[in-house]
Amino acid sequence: MEQTKFVITEKDMPTAWYNVQADLPEPLPPILHPGTKEPTILPPPLFPAALNEQEFSTERWIEIPEEVQSILRLYRPTILHRAHRLEKALDTPAKIFYKYEGTSPAGSHKLNTAVAQAYYGKQAGAKRLVTETGAGQWGSALSMACSFLGLECKVYMVKVSYNQKPYRRILMETFGAQVLASPSTDTQVGRNILEKDPNSSGSLGIAISEAVEDAFGRDDSFYNLGSVLNHVLMHQTVIGLETKKQFEMAGECPDIIVGCVGGGSNFAGLILPYIPDKLGGKNVQIIAVEPTACPSITKGPLAWDYGDVAGMAPIARMYTVGHSFVPPPVHAGGLRYHGMAPVVSHLAKLKLIEARAEHQIAIFNSAVTFAKAEGIIPAPEPSHAIKVVIDEANKCKESGEKKTILLGLSGHGHFDLSAYEEYLAGNLQDYEFPTEKMQEALKELPQVEV
Amino acid sequence: MEQTKFVITEKDMPTAWYNVQADLPEPLPPILHPGTKEPTILPPPLFPAALNEQEFSTERWIEIPEEVQSILRLYRPTILHRAHRLEKALDTPAKIFYKYEGTSPAGSHKLNTAVAQAYYGKQAGAKRLVTETGAGQWGSALSMACSFLGLECKVYMVKVSYNQKPYRRILMETFGAQVLASPSTDTQVGRNILEKDPNSSGSLGIAISEAVEDAFGRDDSFYNLGSVLNHVLMHQTVIGLETKKQFEMAGECPDIIVGCVGGGSNFAGLILPYIPDKLGGKNVQIIAVEPTACPSITKGPLAWDYGDVAGMAPIARMYTVGHSFVPPPVHAGGLRYHGMAPVVSHLAKLKLIEARAEHQIAIFNSAVTFAKAEGIIPAPEPSHAIKVVIDEANKCKESGEKKTILLGLSGHGHFDLSAYEEYLAGNLQDYEFPTEKMQEALKELPQVEV
Repeated sequence: MEQTKFVITEKDMPTAWYNVQADLPEPLPPILHPGTKEPTILPPPLFPAALNEQEFSTERWIEIPEEVQSILRLYRPTILHRAHRLEKALDTPAKIFYKYEGTSPAGSHKLNTAVAQAYYGKQAGAKRLVTETGAGQWGSALSMACSFLGLECKVYMVKVSYNQKPYRRILMETFGAQVLASPSTDTQVGRNILEKDPNSSGSLGIAISEAVEDAFGRDDSFYNLGSVLNHVLMHQTVIGLETKKQFEMAGECPDIIVGCVGGGSNFAGLILPYIPDKLGGKNVQIIAVEPTACPSITKGPLAWDYGDVAGMAPIARMYTVGHSFVPPPVHAGGLRYHGMAPVVSHLAKLKLIEARAEHQIAIFNSAVTFAKAEGIIPAPEPSHAIKVVIDEANKCKESGEKKTILLGLSGHGHFDLSAYEEYLAGNLQDYEFPTEKMQEALKELPQVEV
Repeated sequence: MEQTKFVITEKDMPTAWYNVQADLPEPLPPILHPGTKEPTILPPPLFPAALNEQEFSTERWIEIPEEVQSILRLYRPTILHRAHRLEKALDTPAKIFYKYEGTSPAGSHKLNTAVAQAYYGKQAGAKRLVTETGAGQWGSALSMACSFLGLECKVYMVKVSYNQKPYRRILMETFGAQVLASPSTDTQVGRNILEKDPNSSGSLGIAISEAVEDAFGRDDSFYNLGSVLNHVLMHQTVIGLETKKQFEMAGECPDIIVGCVGGGSNFAGLILPYIPDKLGGKNVQIIAVEPTACPSITKGPLAWDYGDVAGMAPIARMYTVGHSFVPPPVHAGGLRYHGMAPVVSHLAKLKLIEARAEHQIAIFNSAVTFAKAEGIIPAPEPSHAIKVVIDEANKCKESGEKKTILLGLSGHGHFDLSAYEEYLAGNLQDYEFPTEKMQEALKELPQVEV
């Protein structure tokens, strides 16, 4: 009997987050105020002080509060699986492992940081949290976290998703969240847009602006973000910390680690705890996979750009296709952010990680291969990583190498089945990357002298 | 830190199914041929000999083939959770545990028997398996199992579900199954019905007849059933066997065990391994929970009735509301079967288990309470059991008793969110049980002299 699952108990769960800023050979660039373009912190009315502190901390370990741990224990530690059946299906000598976050009640890794953010918000006196959501993963996670901690939650959901993904909306409402189709009449931003275009289908940029305006206007509220920021990525390191213990148990070590990147939080959560090993000389190849529709690392420059579409958020140093670039409508909604998290961008610049971009039809093809072997229907986002894992396993078949490959499987695809239907019907489309549109968008990067 | 999850490793997984027929103080009544009304076996062209043997075996332990075990290891053992947060929300001194089967890739316990059935079908030379599905849980599980074992799968899906639950259909198609809206033109039964009523929305009875006709007509095919039969219930005992080991680990013993019953397979899987303890004098209360819309044990007689609506399946001794009774359209589609599994009926007759019936709105109310405390959105079916668990925990609060309560949480509700939406909007309906309709249906019970 070959072992299939590597399970650690909740006693072995990490009690501190790993902060890669302690170990970077070159510190992260600052973030800049969008007006003054001077180094700044996260806007204090929107973020509790504890999160601002974490954002810039260079302490290696930051303790996870017991109340946060107690909620994480509802579903953590998650399982590290050995994909024996996929290996057989591919007839590869490679050993494939996957760390699966889809057993979180929110269906993805997003809950790991949502719980922490809700906790610190409450500690700082908030009665309610406000956020935006596109596809609905992040909104689901924050709704759940607020419900657990007894906070109100308000989610501005991009109108086109609100209408197309009713299940995600109902999930949030079940946990007591108020979910509005954005643009809404609850904010000045929303009212202005609706006045010009009553049929506006919304955008993530508009939803962010509405959520920020809403939280800014009230003493009892914070604004919350589900990716990109340093503290968000740090909260996700529970994934990689658990994985390292599970690999010890398996008596193995990954030669290749693969994760998908949108904002970068699931990828960072898995790989950051391996960075000290890599800096210490360990030979581990780390691959970030993005969609060809929004290839910030593989096609974009490393530049100063706004964190949001409206140009009101702080400016960060990141790989970007330009904050005004609108990516083609691929199903992996979670990978359509214009920039890459500063931490991930920095690691790419330092060549500690590499990146690849994959097309939509190929990733669904890989997703179905994975599902038929392992049973799990993956979300479109991590299916990008699956594509690369299968490529690497096929290379091992050719070369005869027995590499150990680790896949970050960030969530299930139960709410993405309409995308699978399009794929199965042969109606899915690949998009050539509109390089000229990106060039146009890059002209709107902020002018920064540092 | 109080432990939240009781995890056993795959080395501790049961290697044999527990067959309660070895321990019954009074043997099960036979099943009867629908024509001759003489004792019979399952129709051999439809079922492999190995399953027929299991159906009537009185061996206590039946070995689980290694190939079946290896597939079960993809997701088993499942976790036994301690519901600390629900206990706090209810402010009860009771200890509440739940065994959660929703982490199966099919989303429910159904995969446990689907894998076994596909295995024995393949062993007996089948190239394809045929079945029907109502809400889609069983069809999903069999599609997955066939994909794992390299068999074709054909699913007749009740047309109203086919149209209302596209996600379930797409899930089956992703695993390569052929899914037809029933009534279909692929069978004589279907064609006859469509000729009379081209707009027929179908029924489980029609879908069963189509699947049986399809499998009967081909040498390379078996027919498969997801509940009711003895061997199906036995395949589910992995649930209870794991649970017992996990309770040992927790140093606890359940005083009350609660599960929902439709055909009876999830309930039986959890409770059958506790029957020897109960027969040996152990004081454990076992409660089966059915919907008030289809209350076979609490309102129906123990009688001889056909297993199917058409009166073509074998006749079994069971609690029944009559094979021709059409229950009100509650959302718990998996609990709308007219009869109760012969094994469960027999245990009820012997007073080894008791039964309660619950209304739809109350069960959704309990489901939301559970979700807000524990994070998991339960399917409507196990939400019936949650209602009774909460009732019992509230009784403990009144009496001060510290009972240990075990809940069988058979699956998640990710594909049932439209029902939650109706509940949250206040549009859900309770149904008074139509006793007169049942009385009418009971007039059509087969005349049997035994």
